[in-house]
Amino acid sequence: PLILRKPKDSPTIRELLANSPFRNKHIVSVSQFSRNELHLLFTVAQEMRLGVEREGCLDVLKGRVLCLMFFEPSTRTSSSFDTAMKRLGGQTVLISEAHSSTQKGESLEDTIRTLDQYGDAIVLRHPSDESANIAAKFSDRPIINAGNGSREHPTQAFLDLFTIREELGTVNGLTITFTGDLRYGRTVHSLCELLKHYNVTIQLVSPASLALPDKVRETLKSRSQLGVVSTNLTPEIIAKTDVLYCTRVQKERFEDPQLYERVKNSLVVDNATLKHAKQNMIVMHPLPRNAEIAREVDDDPRAAYFRQMKYGMFVRMALLALVMTPVEEGKRRFSFV
Amino acid sequence: PLILRKPKDSPTIRELLANSPFRNKHIVSVSQFSRNELHLLFTVAQEMRLGVEREGCLDVLKGRVLCLMFFEPSTRTSSSFDTAMKRLGGQTVLISEAHSSTQKGESLEDTIRTLDQYGDAIVLRHPSDESANIAAKFSDRPIINAGNGSREHPTQAFLDLFTIREELGTVNGLTITFTGDLRYGRTVHSLCELLKHYNVTIQLVSPASLALPDKVRETLKSRSQLGVVSTNLTPEIIAKTDVLYCTRVQKERFEDPQLYERVKNSLVVDNATLKHAKQNMIVMHPLPRNAEIAREVDDDPRAAYFRQMKYGMFVRMALLALVMTPVEEGKRRFSFV
Amino acid sequence: PLILRKPKDSPTIRELLANSPFRNKHIVSVSQFSRNELHLLFTVAQEMRLGVEREGCLDVLKGRVLCLMFFEPSTRTSSSFDTAMKRLGGQTVLISEAHSSTQKGESLEDTIRTLDQYGDAIVLRHPSDESANIAAKFSDRPIINAGNGSREHPTQAFLDLFTIREELGTVNGLTITFTGDLRYGRTVHSLCELLKHYNVTIQLVSPASLALPDKVRETLKSRSQLGVVSTNLTPEIIAKTDVLYCTRVQKERFEDPQLYERVKNSLVVDNATLKHAKQNMIVMHPLPRNAEIAREVDDDPRAAYFRQMKYGMFVRMALLALVMTPVEEGKRRFSFV
Repeated sequence: PLILRKPKDSPTIRELLANSPFRNKHIVSVSQFSRNELHLLFTVAQEMRLGVEREGCLDVLKGRVLCLMFFEPSTRTSSSFDTAMKRLGGQTVLISEAHSSTQKGESLEDTIRTLDQYGDAIVLRHPSDESANIAAKFSDRPIINAGNGSREHPTQAFLDLFTIREELGTVNGLTITFTGDLRYGRTVHSLCELLKHYNVTIQLVSPASLALPDKVRETLKSRSQLGVVSTNLTPEIIAKTDVLYCTRVQKERFEDPQLYERVKNSLVVDNATLKHAKQNMIVMHPLPRNAEIAREVDDDPRAAYFRQMKYGMFVRMALLALVMTPVEEGKRRFSFV
Repeated sequence: PLILRKPKDSPTIRELLANSPFRNKHIVSVSQFSRNELHLLFTVAQEMRLGVEREGCLDVLKGRVLCLMFFEPSTRTSSSFDTAMKRLGGQTVLISEAHSSTQKGESLEDTIRTLDQYGDAIVLRHPSDESANIAAKFSDRPIINAGNGSREHPTQAFLDLFTIREELGTVNGLTITFTGDLRYGRTVHSLCELLKHYNVTIQLVSPASLALPDKVRETLKSRSQLGVVSTNLTPEIIAKTDVLYCTRVQKERFEDPQLYERVKNSLVVDNATLKHAKQNMIVMHPLPRNAEIAREVDDDPRAAYFRQMKYGMFVRMALLALVMTPVEEGKRRFSFV
Repeated sequence: PLILRKPKDSPTIRELLANSPFRNKHIVSVSQFSRNELHLLFTVAQEMRLGVEREGCLDVLKGRVLCLMFFEPSTRTSSSFDTAMKRLGGQTVLISEAHSSTQKGESLEDTIRTLDQYGDAIVLRHPSDESANIAAKFSDRPIINAGNGSREHPTQAFLDLFTIREELGTVNGLTITFTGDLRYGRTVHSLCELLKHYNVTIQLVSPASLALPDKVRETLKSRSQLGVVSTNLTPEIIAKTDVLYCTRVQKERFEDPQLYERVKNSLVVDNATLKHAKQNMIVMHPLPRNAEIAREVDDDPRAAYFRQMKYGMFVRMALLALVMTPVEEGKRRFSFV
């Protein structure tokens, strides 16, 4: 109170951003990130959290424009990026599938090279696995992958990890249990990839038909991270769990509707399930959920899935700031500090 | 001109907002508002009008983010809130039906609890009567009801009343005539509810099949507010009218198309109708209109229905400011004034 | 560096805007513009370019709100206006077809008179030829035509001309070759209209069924601007060309699919075509393209069609600033400079 300081954002954020290794870089895959870079991302995300709690919005990206291109709808992700950019003081331009010139037969390359001319970066969600790489190849502006088909959704994986850190203080030493559809869920695969940086035990609970692909499981095994693998969420598994990461089981995946019903019911997490759980564990879910988590769990303080959404906004703020803060900006402002 | 003052917004607005009884409150129903609170809302709305006329935009909600969730389309209402928020210096994030995860079977509660994490308040329009109450129950952020099914549309009622005040100087002592579909029009019902705070005479003109519901009419009678009830808009009724409030008669409401044509034509307001009207009365309509008001009336200075849209923006600015101005903001800024 | 100056925008822009002949004017047709006015528009657009390259965003339209009404989808145009407004420091409110109350049978007039009340200007894209004139007649706020049916698309013509100026330094003395669908393409017609202000030679290459309408061709002839007219893009035509303006040939225009294939292939511009072209010529296209320009051309420095998009943003920034900068603003700020 006796020391004058700029109220809007701490020098820490500016300093962290001034040396960003991600400035003007495409963010296509979680595998681009070293452990140190992840650490930087989370440190900036924590500063974003403090900044938002204190001020609502910062002015880190004032004068910057972000294009949000969503070729398939995703409320959660687009709203999260949209809010993140606005809380950084920047502006967004939304392009949704319905409006797109691709309806006139335009290629993704051409659409990207056009939007390139307007904004300072592009967040891209597209049903094709190749989309993010194609966009990155043709764009002069940084592309941020917000989901390319069944491939990756990097910011989801980052926010999952950030949630664990913020809620439990650390990732190392934890036991993480994945339940549900471990076969098709790109969320789980990306998070498994990121967990290579940490010392964790991973338990897998899913019906045989939705088991984690062999390749991913072998990777976990080779890192000595693989714990119990089961088709049932037993009290023993729950008791050991620090992070219970549930995913949606979709009816479309099953040929036999009766099997779907049986599986669905065997994986439901409710208050009875959590009776066996530690007091300081957390339940996560990328949302939207179907019946995997009973509504009664929402009031349990261990239910972290709605808070997870907020961590997602902070992580996206951090990533946008690290990618979009102009270098001169950093320098110019610093010369006055 | 000799006294230095902050150009952006008058201390009056800050003072009014500093003691807002609506800060962080859900706005679900007009029945939440006492007469004093209505008065406060309108006083702030007048200041907003002055501010916009002078500056275009204020910075009252700088750094705040408003989520606009429209589960059914409504250009008028969503654009009005959108502009209102932006003229307050804030930002908006739009979520429309088409984008919604409810398509993936997500419940309203979950959608609300997610968006909760991003924005500072939520404006909700939803076809279900229960929507606003459900949202209010589950949201940690203030919910502003922008239409819940056939139930209520509070800001429409507020803007109707504000229009009368601004155009005619007062509400007390006036004769207000409602025409058209008085049975299904939630606008009319909400306005009738608000008029309990005023000393007015209410005339009702509608076909029998679209008459005001008995319950509402009995309420008016019990307040001694009920005047002439008629199926025809007679010169006598017009002559006594200070506010002619027309509503849309929809073809879908009629089983007999001939009856619809007869009714529709009997209620049309045109220049001939207005020959019998006072010089300082006004014609209102919530819009969109069909044939209820002839286009020739648009040039009559008594036609207030387009100005009504602008009053709507000022009222929504006032409501957003009263709900969303953070308490510390008020305090902090005042300490410098 | 030794002289203090306002960092955000040069006095030049303010000065240019202070005397804008377009302030609060409707922009419906390119024929409204004298040569001097075009020159002013391009001078401001150049300043916008410098401003964006230096700062990202200006604050010329801070506190202004622009309504974007798109009754037919057009990613390119709506994103361009959206970004332009935001890079001027202003805000936008988007109203797309899907949301429109016209679905409830509302007339264009009523929709316009409503939005009139919210924003400070309206950008309108509408399938009807009469739309822009109707809107201009009923709106108290300036209407900017962003495409009225097959009639006009003024900002497209402006940006085409601005692209030529910026890329080649001048328009006078150039040979401009139009290829493709010269019959239905409003882009070509509007650009021909604007080219009356310049000393140019125009070559026309199209199949007979898609030839430039007689009236437009006669006009070019009467100005002594008409050069070679051909159904084939010959090496001779290419060799003389300074600006090769290609347009999309749409399958729907042909009754005979074989004819379409033949025509389409005869007009393709690829590296082989450009072997005959000057080193300092440019290839333009309003985009989206189909097969008219081979992808291999994209890497040729003469390919100007993506840069054309960026010039479009600068021209739209210039036009918005010339129309929307309030007169007092100009005066008030100048008194401090």
